[in-house]
Amino acid sequence: MFIVADNIQITNKLLEKAVRKEDPYPIQQLVKKCESAGAEAIDINSGPVSQNPGKMAFLVQVIQDVTDLPVLLDSANPKAIEAGLKASNKTAIINGVSLEPVKLESILPLAKEYGTDIIGYLLNPDSSVPPDMTGRLNVAVELFEKCLDAGIDTEKLIIDPIVAPVIWQDGNIQDMEVLNVIRQLPDLLGFPVRTIAGLSNLTTGKGIKEKKLLLERTYLPMLAASGLNYILMNVFHLESVKTAVACRELMSNGIFTWESV
Amino acid sequence: MFIVADNIQITNKLLEKAVRKEDPYPIQQLVKKCESAGAEAIDINSGPVSQNPGKMAFLVQVIQDVTDLPVLLDSANPKAIEAGLKASNKTAIINGVSLEPVKLESILPLAKEYGTDIIGYLLNPDSSVPPDMTGRLNVAVELFEKCLDAGIDTEKLIIDPIVAPVIWQDGNIQDMEVLNVIRQLPDLLGFPVRTIAGLSNLTTGKGIKEKKLLLERTYLPMLAASGLNYILMNVFHLESVKTAVACRELMSNGIFTWESV
Repeated sequence: MFIVADNIQITNKLLEKAVRKEDPYPIQQLVKKCESAGAEAIDINSGPVSQNPGKMAFLVQVIQDVTDLPVLLDSANPKAIEAGLKASNKTAIINGVSLEPVKLESILPLAKEYGTDIIGYLLNPDSSVPPDMTGRLNVAVELFEKCLDAGIDTEKLIIDPIVAPVIWQDGNIQDMEVLNVIRQLPDLLGFPVRTIAGLSNLTTGKGIKEKKLLLERTYLPMLAASGLNYILMNVFHLESVKTAVACRELMSNGIFTWESV
Repeated sequence: MFIVADNIQITNKLLEKAVRKEDPYPIQQLVKKCESAGAEAIDINSGPVSQNPGKMAFLVQVIQDVTDLPVLLDSANPKAIEAGLKASNKTAIINGVSLEPVKLESILPLAKEYGTDIIGYLLNPDSSVPPDMTGRLNVAVELFEKCLDAGIDTEKLIIDPIVAPVIWQDGNIQDMEVLNVIRQLPDLLGFPVRTIAGLSNLTTGKGIKEKKLLLERTYLPMLAASGLNYILMNVFHLESVKTAVACRELMSNGIFTWESV
């Protein structure tokens, strides 16, 4: 399970100001800190600034200037994703596509043109979350077929099953089903499809930080044991990162050594 | 998932002395502390003192005098288990039986006579650990059949799949298989068979305490998500108990509330 930092969010005031002024320094410092903290890929969540696609290009450039880690181009704007892909001279992953028709039409061709990995969200075409496992699995099959139709090598598809906030009425029940979705996807799609999940989704909303972190650290090994490939998380949550590393050691096929934990 | 305290181990010098002198106080104090810390059952690991079956009877009496929690009679000596069952006036569970012929012959009849739950270890008849999932599942089927033959209601059987120490050459690989064993047992045996696992087994041997606890806290949610019913653990490991409670909240069918975490 690889650790993807979710820390580069341009809703962060400091980063938003840096992007507006095109000042690379605060962004690059944060990226370096993420890498030191254990990040193995960097999600670039450009937020509202990606209304200007040039800002995503700027972000990709300044981030790739200080790291060789893969970047995830996390934007709702296809033009920003395209600008990011054009600007990238290292590994970039599209984050992402859903069954929303406008996204399928505009984003899938980019994945084909640039030959990149692409994250597919298990959301309904209207962006609502399917309420149960069957709903999520049906969406996965549809996404898979849309990728096939678009001429994309389906092994480029990474599925995000969508972790539900526990405060939703049946949030925790959905989150247990998410574990089964992750486990069943490879058989359903007929190849070892990769999966990604956003850990902080679990505790969206009000709550005491300490309890939120406990819950995230508890859910994380459940996701890992289900076969999750990428965990999108705040890499400054030290105990959570330690837990992710411990998951990896427990699940390693190599010989266990205490030194790696 | 219920929390079973593994804290009453008569290899502990203080407890050993108390048992030898038949002084209830240190034992009862420890049991009360376990209950306050979150224990929902008490494993009585009588260790070498159970060569004298009367000592198990003494332990059961003094413990049941201060708690209504179920007790697990954890001894290799069938006579000690029998003495414990005779002394018990609350819920007692036999911990446990294996395919070792002498145990089958002496312990299964006790489960039948006293109508108690009985823990069955997934060990070979020579007490070695089966090296893989198939080996463990085969033992489970054999144990199930031995219970049937002995006229025991098979729903009384609780399976302990035997967590492997990670420092064994393929320990962590076995521990991932243990998760699958737990998941597959109900289908294999055709009823919702209950399972128990000893968490501290994972980190048996040398190692830094902090890392051991991290690894145990990481494995615990994996066990829970696989459907484990009872976790045998040190209930004074506060963070591990919090993790067990968080597992329960995540896996609850009720509505999640932050108050319960």
